[in-house]
Amino acid sequence: MSRTLHHTDCVIVGAGYAGIAAASRLHAAGKSFLLLEARNRIGGRVHTQQLADGTLVDLGAQWIGPAQHLIWEWTRKHQVATFDCYDSGKNILCYKNRIRTYKGTIPKMDPISLIDLGLGINRLNKLCRQVPLEAPWTAAKAEEWDSITLDTWINKNVKTYKARKSMHIGIETVFACQAAEISLLHALFYCHSGGNLDALLAVTGGAQQTLFVKGAQHLLELEAATFSDKIYLEQPVRSIRQHADGVTVLSDRMEISARKVILALPPALCQKIHFEQPLPYRKTQLFQRMPMGAAMKCYAIYNQPFWREQGYSGQIVSDRTPLHVSFDCTKPDGKGALLFFVEGKYARDFIEESPENRRRKVLSELAFFYGKKALEPVDYTDKCWIEEEYSGGCYAGNFTPGSWTQFGPVLRTPAGHIHWAGTETALKWCGYMDGAIESGQRAADEVLEQ
Amino acid sequence: MSRTLHHTDCVIVGAGYAGIAAASRLHAAGKSFLLLEARNRIGGRVHTQQLADGTLVDLGAQWIGPAQHLIWEWTRKHQVATFDCYDSGKNILCYKNRIRTYKGTIPKMDPISLIDLGLGINRLNKLCRQVPLEAPWTAAKAEEWDSITLDTWINKNVKTYKARKSMHIGIETVFACQAAEISLLHALFYCHSGGNLDALLAVTGGAQQTLFVKGAQHLLELEAATFSDKIYLEQPVRSIRQHADGVTVLSDRMEISARKVILALPPALCQKIHFEQPLPYRKTQLFQRMPMGAAMKCYAIYNQPFWREQGYSGQIVSDRTPLHVSFDCTKPDGKGALLFFVEGKYARDFIEESPENRRRKVLSELAFFYGKKALEPVDYTDKCWIEEEYSGGCYAGNFTPGSWTQFGPVLRTPAGHIHWAGTETALKWCGYMDGAIESGQRAADEVLEQ
Repeated sequence: MSRTLHHTDCVIVGAGYAGIAAASRLHAAGKSFLLLEARNRIGGRVHTQQLADGTLVDLGAQWIGPAQHLIWEWTRKHQVATFDCYDSGKNILCYKNRIRTYKGTIPKMDPISLIDLGLGINRLNKLCRQVPLEAPWTAAKAEEWDSITLDTWINKNVKTYKARKSMHIGIETVFACQAAEISLLHALFYCHSGGNLDALLAVTGGAQQTLFVKGAQHLLELEAATFSDKIYLEQPVRSIRQHADGVTVLSDRMEISARKVILALPPALCQKIHFEQPLPYRKTQLFQRMPMGAAMKCYAIYNQPFWREQGYSGQIVSDRTPLHVSFDCTKPDGKGALLFFVEGKYARDFIEESPENRRRKVLSELAFFYGKKALEPVDYTDKCWIEEEYSGGCYAGNFTPGSWTQFGPVLRTPAGHIHWAGTETALKWCGYMDGAIESGQRAADEVLEQ
Repeated sequence: MSRTLHHTDCVIVGAGYAGIAAASRLHAAGKSFLLLEARNRIGGRVHTQQLADGTLVDLGAQWIGPAQHLIWEWTRKHQVATFDCYDSGKNILCYKNRIRTYKGTIPKMDPISLIDLGLGINRLNKLCRQVPLEAPWTAAKAEEWDSITLDTWINKNVKTYKARKSMHIGIETVFACQAAEISLLHALFYCHSGGNLDALLAVTGGAQQTLFVKGAQHLLELEAATFSDKIYLEQPVRSIRQHADGVTVLSDRMEISARKVILALPPALCQKIHFEQPLPYRKTQLFQRMPMGAAMKCYAIYNQPFWREQGYSGQIVSDRTPLHVSFDCTKPDGKGALLFFVEGKYARDFIEESPENRRRKVLSELAFFYGKKALEPVDYTDKCWIEEEYSGGCYAGNFTPGSWTQFGPVLRTPAGHIHWAGTETALKWCGYMDGAIESGQRAADEVLEQ
């Protein structure tokens, strides 16, 4: 197959929030660039789907929090409509099949479990402030914290069933993996990156506060509108050749000469690219050590958010496997939208069931909490991000134990003419859309400075 | 670039011990096959180098143990000369710059450290017998053991400085990574796979007992001699397409239609191949969770094994960084060959120093123990396996915490017409040449059965 030849200043690989943010900054600076995207759409781990009845649902990242300034800047610039995630009424807590309801932020538990949980979260929040975002490996106890799993820390610091289960459900919802898969140091860095664990878990005031009326992909399309002619879809990059003055980037159908390339991909996916000049050893081995989580979103759409009439918030935390956490994502004047998350190992099991089984289980779980009305949605859809070849999982690549201290220093270091973006390289809101924007802008700045 | 077209029954990817073992079995059964190797040599993580003075040194895997029956079978079949690794005289133990010498297998330590170490190893050996080799995730305590790092277990079970340090040096020598990087379950599986930790650490009676006079690559070349026309070097496989009746395998210059393909690669490296039909999700995510270790071998060659005249065995265990463990690999009637290992994080640091510095440090370390004669070798060479693009590290891919229990069940499961070999998939002697042979034979048997 012959390839079309192109020349540009900078090639950007990946049209998610990170890649588009890099492109946007280069565009504003008058630099020439081309953006190659493997899929037939922009968005990466952000993907908004229109259901048969017209309802828009975000199958990937969707929320923004009040402290996520970069994405709020885009939101204001493009005058995109947002709304607050429903956060009134009775929340449900269900442990060992006993349903308790409560209002506000303090879950209904016996006092001992409640104190246990509160102390655990406080302890984690206190530790996370000791992890410098730009260099987690320099924390005074970095070695020690990188040598134990988060699971080990939880077992030592949280003792009661309900508190421990709450911690695990919270951690799985935040990281899309089991607490055993990541080190305490990674957990502390990640929490600090977004403020603290409370901020990552909260709706109002936290990372789940605000939603986009037209979905999170729409904002990205607006941001990319002025340079959409520079974006080439269905162009997975196969290899990169470096020479003294620049790079040659090859997809199956394009060959692009450029001075710089920005890889705006999850670290694990960089392994799919053949680097004709091998990368620095530590970089290659880092890519082997940031496995992607597994997250699944299950939406049930109803004519009305009927649970609100019953006084419920739509928020459930439950130890009934595999559906642990739900939210009410109903748009203003939209149909009732309940979202159940399935995370980590539960997502890997759940996606292997038939679509009919998954639908049946989600609906019957909702019926368990909200009654028979839940069995008659107008639509149901779900999405598991480990299905996506060009994401490899979701939400993000997490450092495995022992990796931050050994490989953290090369995370953002350019390799010759190759620069690195992607939410995994962000200082603030690592793992979120906001962090992706930060990373793309930072990589573009590196390119512009040279 | 146009590709030459080929047809065969089975394509094998990777000409290490696993790939050659698979080829050998197919060859014996009269099946047609082609073997594609990315490098310009066969051997994979086995590589024998001839120094300027003619001395042969194994830069990669080299030893075989008495219980490694498959590689002994090849050794006898090809009547390859072997010799026992020198294991007489005084061993050196050096902690906190105090040198102690001892003979035999019991290190010279104060009784408390010695008991502490003995109990620690015994405890680990006892636990490892509870891990079924064919299904480690079914061990009664699999979840618990997969949730903690080996480092956490050592800290809890071994208390004195010398015992703990000895454990870490032993673990690093066995796994080529830090104890923090792997779960207890992985460590137990791996030790059980080779018998127990004692067997993995021992010279006489253990995994370091016997060496090949002409090196470990020579045996492989003999085994491959009858089908060397089927081996294509410098053919890194770029993509694999599956259809109902078989596969199409593409390198840059070849396109091969076949009924089956055997991938005899480290799991992490499978990510370099583009699978046109995405692999089962769990398989893809498994590949993200078996990072390669980092091992470095440093050889100093002398006219005579002069340390023997001083009564030394050539075996050193030392807490002086980065050179922790040495062996005397002198061949019968050969020049004196001392081998120092650098492992895990120490290897990653050491390879970044200049070749002159590395030479200087290794020799001065040897001089510290054996006197000035060590400063005048006839040759010096070293090799770090993270430099090798088509190994990605060494010795093997290790399961990260939380991975065996979630992903172990798909380790060997064929994906359509794709079968999996490589020492990481072995039941016995996982991580060793013997395990590689087992894995290649097993994958070939799968292909032959269909």
